[in-house]
Amino acid sequence: MTETDTGATVGTDTAQAWLDDLDAALAAGDAHAAAELFEPGGFWRDFLALTWNLKTMEGRDRICQMLAEMLPHIRPSGWTVEGKPTVADGVTECWVRFSTSAGSGWGYLRLRDGQAWTLLTTLQDLRGFEEKKGSRRDRGVVHEITRERTTWLERRQARERVLGHTEQPYCLVVGGGQGGIGLAARLARIGVPTIVVDKHEKAGDAWRHRYSSLHLHDPVWYDHMPYLPFPDDWPVFPAKDKIADWLMHYADIMELNYWAKTECRSAEWDEASGTWTVVVDRDGEEVTLHPTQLVFALGVSGYPRIPDFPGAETFRGRQHHSSDHAGGDDWAGKRAVVIGSNNSAHDICADLWEHGAEVTMVQRSSTHISRSESLMDLVLKPLYSEEALEAGITTEMADMLFASWPYRVLPEIQRPAFEEMADRDRDFYDALEAAGFDLDFGEDGSGLFLKYLRRGSGYYIDVGASQLIIDGRVRLATGQVDHLTEDAVVLDNGARLPADLVVHATGYGSMNEWLADLISPDVADRVGKCWGYGSDTTRDPGPWEGELRNMWKPTNVENLWIHGGNLHQSRHYSKYLALQLKARMEGLPTPVFELEESHHSR
Amino acid sequence: MTETDTGATVGTDTAQAWLDDLDAALAAGDAHAAAELFEPGGFWRDFLALTWNLKTMEGRDRICQMLAEMLPHIRPSGWTVEGKPTVADGVTECWVRFSTSAGSGWGYLRLRDGQAWTLLTTLQDLRGFEEKKGSRRDRGVVHEITRERTTWLERRQARERVLGHTEQPYCLVVGGGQGGIGLAARLARIGVPTIVVDKHEKAGDAWRHRYSSLHLHDPVWYDHMPYLPFPDDWPVFPAKDKIADWLMHYADIMELNYWAKTECRSAEWDEASGTWTVVVDRDGEEVTLHPTQLVFALGVSGYPRIPDFPGAETFRGRQHHSSDHAGGDDWAGKRAVVIGSNNSAHDICADLWEHGAEVTMVQRSSTHISRSESLMDLVLKPLYSEEALEAGITTEMADMLFASWPYRVLPEIQRPAFEEMADRDRDFYDALEAAGFDLDFGEDGSGLFLKYLRRGSGYYIDVGASQLIIDGRVRLATGQVDHLTEDAVVLDNGARLPADLVVHATGYGSMNEWLADLISPDVADRVGKCWGYGSDTTRDPGPWEGELRNMWKPTNVENLWIHGGNLHQSRHYSKYLALQLKARMEGLPTPVFELEESHHSR
Repeated sequence: MTETDTGATVGTDTAQAWLDDLDAALAAGDAHAAAELFEPGGFWRDFLALTWNLKTMEGRDRICQMLAEMLPHIRPSGWTVEGKPTVADGVTECWVRFSTSAGSGWGYLRLRDGQAWTLLTTLQDLRGFEEKKGSRRDRGVVHEITRERTTWLERRQARERVLGHTEQPYCLVVGGGQGGIGLAARLARIGVPTIVVDKHEKAGDAWRHRYSSLHLHDPVWYDHMPYLPFPDDWPVFPAKDKIADWLMHYADIMELNYWAKTECRSAEWDEASGTWTVVVDRDGEEVTLHPTQLVFALGVSGYPRIPDFPGAETFRGRQHHSSDHAGGDDWAGKRAVVIGSNNSAHDICADLWEHGAEVTMVQRSSTHISRSESLMDLVLKPLYSEEALEAGITTEMADMLFASWPYRVLPEIQRPAFEEMADRDRDFYDALEAAGFDLDFGEDGSGLFLKYLRRGSGYYIDVGASQLIIDGRVRLATGQVDHLTEDAVVLDNGARLPADLVVHATGYGSMNEWLADLISPDVADRVGKCWGYGSDTTRDPGPWEGELRNMWKPTNVENLWIHGGNLHQSRHYSKYLALQLKARMEGLPTPVFELEESHHSR
Repeated sequence: MTETDTGATVGTDTAQAWLDDLDAALAAGDAHAAAELFEPGGFWRDFLALTWNLKTMEGRDRICQMLAEMLPHIRPSGWTVEGKPTVADGVTECWVRFSTSAGSGWGYLRLRDGQAWTLLTTLQDLRGFEEKKGSRRDRGVVHEITRERTTWLERRQARERVLGHTEQPYCLVVGGGQGGIGLAARLARIGVPTIVVDKHEKAGDAWRHRYSSLHLHDPVWYDHMPYLPFPDDWPVFPAKDKIADWLMHYADIMELNYWAKTECRSAEWDEASGTWTVVVDRDGEEVTLHPTQLVFALGVSGYPRIPDFPGAETFRGRQHHSSDHAGGDDWAGKRAVVIGSNNSAHDICADLWEHGAEVTMVQRSSTHISRSESLMDLVLKPLYSEEALEAGITTEMADMLFASWPYRVLPEIQRPAFEEMADRDRDFYDALEAAGFDLDFGEDGSGLFLKYLRRGSGYYIDVGASQLIIDGRVRLATGQVDHLTEDAVVLDNGARLPADLVVHATGYGSMNEWLADLISPDVADRVGKCWGYGSDTTRDPGPWEGELRNMWKPTNVENLWIHGGNLHQSRHYSKYLALQLKARMEGLPTPVFELEESHHSR
């Protein structure tokens, strides 16, 4: 205890001294002096607080450049260590509070030898527009009785009646999965009139309609929605229908304006009015909406992609994309070929095998596999687990800690865990390779999460299907698909795989296909590629950007935003997207530092 | 800081020394020595831990008697101070952890001059049957794929199909308001197969069907359900429809077996099978259930009670009980007489006035009024408020702290707050009395909550209606109702109150009327009066019992239980009722200390 306390005290002194220096430099408008407080290759990652952008400045020059441009607009001050720093391996780490001309800030700092290695700064609220929670909450009723009082229910019903008809939402969110719902909940809290449109019958259906064996592959601590955590008896891996029900209840509890059975038909920017003209089909009725801001929250991928395999049209069995695979019930005793070897391919192979089909997986390229248990133990546990909660790391803190690593540094942080995984699960990996499975750990050995950030594909979190492959219950074929015949898939090595069912677990197109379709190819190209940070690895071409392209931040098309990601990202980044929308609605200054150029049109 | 720390250290030493003495006496089976550690008039309040009952032992003799009887069955040990004690006004207070042969215990201790003034002990779980939460949570899925796996949805649907038909619930809860729902959630967590039956269309309807202006009269911090707190942006006083929606979502999120549109027709104990035979009407279908345990959770009152006013049958307008008052919409410009002056009467007068009726309230006896704001500031704030949360007092701790005051002591604890209220709101009370309102603060000046505990009536939490009475917008008439004519209510002082509508806000019958009706008069009489603790004040006749009669604890009819109370009580006491049911289901020893005699048959 005493040693730690002393460490913490020294850490506090060190960190606060550094923050005092930063404060002084920033107050003096001295961008150069502030940048000199960082290591020469140090990082300043900022979410809105300094840049009104999601941005990582790498090295003193970039930091200096950002500060020189932004300090006249932003007045950061009051930099203070929060809680007790930790000191380990020569790195002093601590939470930081500060404020800016716009609102209050929260951050995380790592110091080495008195210089900053990494600094994360985030804007947490907008002054005067804070969430009405805790001691700011509404009273709910006026205790002075008048004849003009309306009830909560009357107000809610009235809002449902007018919004989208006689009154326009400020924001339209296209896509009501977990991403759209969580974002809308955040917008509701800060008073941004919003409509969410979703094509399904009801919220949660995108989960409900998947194959029956689907469970979250990430553990429950990683998956909370904003504001209303799952009850503490939820299983580690909730079933898809349980998540679906949660989303359904959540959307109503959060009092969202959720238009189910509603498909977006077209969207067009109207320069004159400064609003979008969005045509939607609401359960058969055409409604034209005029939101000021348009958010696409359709997932991290575009349309299901099925390669143009020669002969596919001659195949007499059934074939569908993995996203259309409702379950293996009809395939007992039948032959199924699943093309692909990522998450969905594995899950669907297992589902078909469970239902008694003869299953063959076609692996076309190497795949990373993490065993679920190992991923939890080695990668997620420090931030998302009971142990983390007991150590006082809330979900909000965990999200910040994860974000505190710049993408440039993240591979070296992640690699040791995956090296340990390779070692710990050596027998498992050996058995997989013995079965002919082509394994990888990412091009630079940085493992699963980096693959996800770079390309959103190329991995499977093993929840049992690998064992089916190891012991041959699911057969494995390796190679490229050459063509389909009327009853088989034929590979380029000549292998012929007889099939009654072909499932194309072949991934998705690019996100901006949605934009091309619903707005215009031109707008899609102006936005450019979404996702990936320019790592120059497979499917994540450069140039380096250091933040996910176009996600949750201003794009090159004004008033158009992209939201998405897994439950963790949707939860965390929806906060910053909501603040950006609210600031614009209120007409607050939002000078954006360095809008990125668009790259890689469709 | 230093002074507090020293105080806490001394407090810890004092408290731990006392607990060590208690531990030694209990371990030695020396009931006398243990009792001597209390003040001569000290209190030991116990929820299940020592007594398998809800019981307050007053004075050393009673404590000694309880220990002498129970120590052979219960082996309490490991008494430890939890956290830092507080020391103020000569009282050292602290949280206590201990364990028994059955499970783990939690308590709260107050010491004066080295002796215990009050000790609360509660059983928190059953060893081997703990809730599967946190680190005990289920995995949710087996990561070994077999052909026998079932999904969460399949299991849930299967349970719905069989429970109550081919499989019998261990427990049947009659009444699916907040009480029944919360209890069922607790039972679900510890694996007690339970069905909740409720006559309404859907959960929450008992709230939904009330008059439109209804809001919770208690602030939000006081009102959480178990396990899933309201989001932190909920208003201080949520509207009734918002609560209704919450209950609806909650029942499904908690995966309750909730049979809506189901009325209980009859219940009979079958000695041979050791189960109840309960006939219910489920949406037109008669279903016979055979639960082992039967819980009535129909609120804290029996049937709506309308006194037999002479001439009532000649009245040509509309008359209904307050519980049937759906709202004032139809009464604009009409004359309404509301008989009664408690909570519902005030709310309904306000509702009718808001809707443009001419309203007269008939006050038949004195009424306590607390202004909502003052009640929050002076009574609830230390336990249920943002301030309390910031001071680290969770809802669970607040419930325990409230329970830590034995009912014998509670009036003297509450009285100063109501004296302050009388002073602070003197102008308000003067104005009410000037308007002719007959005020009281309880027979012993102990205020609102004691009235609630003793009789469940006799007060109004002012949320605005008092001002209507003060300024005459709602007229006040005082006296007893002599008779009704075809168009008026006539009082015993001769006053004639013309009326198109008469609302009987005249309260409810006794809870055991339900039992008489659904089971038998004999069983109802064996159970006796429910609610009230024998304070020997109006509507709470003696003898002294010191706990609410028949609530949440064993009654004189085996396998029959009564659940109810406001949101706070339902939340807290459902925990102990659930543990008693689970212990019996598992066949654990549950020796009950001193089942109370029944009093006051209908």
